Amino acid sequence: MTNTTNIERILGGEVRHVARAISKIEDGAEDAAELMHNLFPHTGRALIIGITGSPGAGKSSLVDRLASVYLAQNKRVGIVAVDPSSPFSGGAILGDRIRMQRLGLDPNVFIRSMATRGQLGGLSRATVDAVAVLDAAGYDVVIVETVGVGQDEVEIVKAADVTVVVVVPGMGDDIQAIKAGIMEISDVFVINKADRDGVLRTEKELEAMMSLSHRNDLWNPPIIKTVATENKGLEDLANAIASYHAFYKQSEHGQARRNSIARWRIIELMREQLLRRVMKDDKTAMRLDELVEDVAAKKIDVYAAVDELIGS
Amino acid sequence: MTNTTNIERILGGEVRHVARAISKIEDGAEDAAELMHNLFPHTGRALIIGITGSPGAGKSSLVDRLASVYLAQNKRVGIVAVDPSSPFSGGAILGDRIRMQRLGLDPNVFIRSMATRGQLGGLSRATVDAVAVLDAAGYDVVIVETVGVGQDEVEIVKAADVTVVVVVPGMGDDIQAIKAGIMEISDVFVINKADRDGVLRTEKELEAMMSLSHRNDLWNPPIIKTVATENKGLEDLANAIASYHAFYKQSEHGQARRNSIARWRIIELMREQLLRRVMKDDKTAMRLDELVEDVAAKKIDVYAAVDELIGS
Repeated sequence: MTNTTNIERILGGEVRHVARAISKIEDGAEDAAELMHNLFPHTGRALIIGITGSPGAGKSSLVDRLASVYLAQNKRVGIVAVDPSSPFSGGAILGDRIRMQRLGLDPNVFIRSMATRGQLGGLSRATVDAVAVLDAAGYDVVIVETVGVGQDEVEIVKAADVTVVVVVPGMGDDIQAIKAGIMEISDVFVINKADRDGVLRTEKELEAMMSLSHRNDLWNPPIIKTVATENKGLEDLANAIASYHAFYKQSEHGQARRNSIARWRIIELMREQLLRRVMKDDKTAMRLDELVEDVAAKKIDVYAAVDELIGS
Repeated sequence: MTNTTNIERILGGEVRHVARAISKIEDGAEDAAELMHNLFPHTGRALIIGITGSPGAGKSSLVDRLASVYLAQNKRVGIVAVDPSSPFSGGAILGDRIRMQRLGLDPNVFIRSMATRGQLGGLSRATVDAVAVLDAAGYDVVIVETVGVGQDEVEIVKAADVTVVVVVPGMGDDIQAIKAGIMEISDVFVINKADRDGVLRTEKELEAMMSLSHRNDLWNPPIIKTVATENKGLEDLANAIASYHAFYKQSEHGQARRNSIARWRIIELMREQLLRRVMKDDKTAMRLDELVEDVAAKKIDVYAAVDELIGS
């Protein structure tokens, strides 16, 4: 797979090869490391946008419309959607299909849903690697979308150049609960479905939260109002993203952010590799199956089981 | 800490000792394993309820009111809330404070928010362990609440005896996106804020999804309508939870579920312990700091950095 020809085909943006490379990465294939190593020198050119927000905020439509803005600028756009599907079903595939109908088969768009992490973890790692593949393959803009506000999802969007948090009017009490987390990761806020009641109140709430938060750079996250389904406000959003990106590249805080992304990526990969190594041993894998039954039957506790598997 | 006296104080339900035990677990303290090992024989009595749903669904109010139903039955209730706070701020603490005002200082309630996972991971493990501590401490019902629908959050609620998914009328398109995941984990559905428009449509949507999903037991998840803020429908919810729990204990699928929970818990703990062990070495920790800078500066790729830290 990772012979020179294929690397060149990925770098040349050949869709079939790009897709296959991402599958390898998702599966944690043996040669994924070599592949990423070879692609690495060609990364760093794309603008990577992370978009998050709760279900119901209309993120998918927003991402699709934002992609259209970039397409109109003759840019190639990659979209990586992280779907909170269960290990048992193909939620991600369904998402892809709906998407493809909307953006059509535009050759300048590449859409990929990342399914749930497997038993060994690695969804975050695989997602960030998939973004790097698209970057190397010459996509000018890569949009990473996560549904939900879980820890992994937050980490994934934090690893972008620009992080966009989408809210909708009238989210209610729970905006309070998520505020601490989102205030610190958001470079740009979007109030989507801004034709609904309560826009002003939501805007005031966001402003109030911002005044309380301690961002450690001088950036004041703009609040952009959109109605994605009616294609309103998307140009403003693209402009706000470009402004933050220009700011970030110059800012000394950009360095701190890049360091923290690097640390997270190293640790995530290390976590996955360490587990993979232990589980490679057939005896350990078989003993795990037995211990699963013992723990389920409450014969031993989890800590004792892990001690036995990897020594204490 | 884990001398006999303290274990007995935890088992006796002394709040201060319970709280301290959970802190130890959250920090991944050296003696956490011993503590859990000692508490283990005393677990398995509580009814563990996992509640999830997107921000804005009114989960906190629902959990508080449901707790009141159990309190009225003279039961002791533990609440463990997983907050998607950032590593930089104290989102979890804020949540606790708001809560305490609502449920007051009822001696039969124990409320704890679990903050974000640290650099070494372990939030899921810590949360499930905290539930076990409350179980051992004699709380009859333990409610685990997660904000958001991230992977970790889903795993945490799946580890409960009964999993409740909360939706609200008019969630829009994204209910489609999350359907694959939630259909398979949900034992009981709640349509909260059921005084709003669109309840019937949401109910029909849930029913349509259920007819398409492949649950591997014979349970047909009920849909309960609540208006938590007006204390409506909570008794129905408690009854539905009790029904599923009775079903689950007898069902042969209960065994499969317990096995899958056990496997997940073992793997999560293994993942954390393996990383902890590597990072304990000062030389590795120092080299990590250097490699972080190199990866951030794009001098080397992440895979090469990890290879150097843990060997390939």
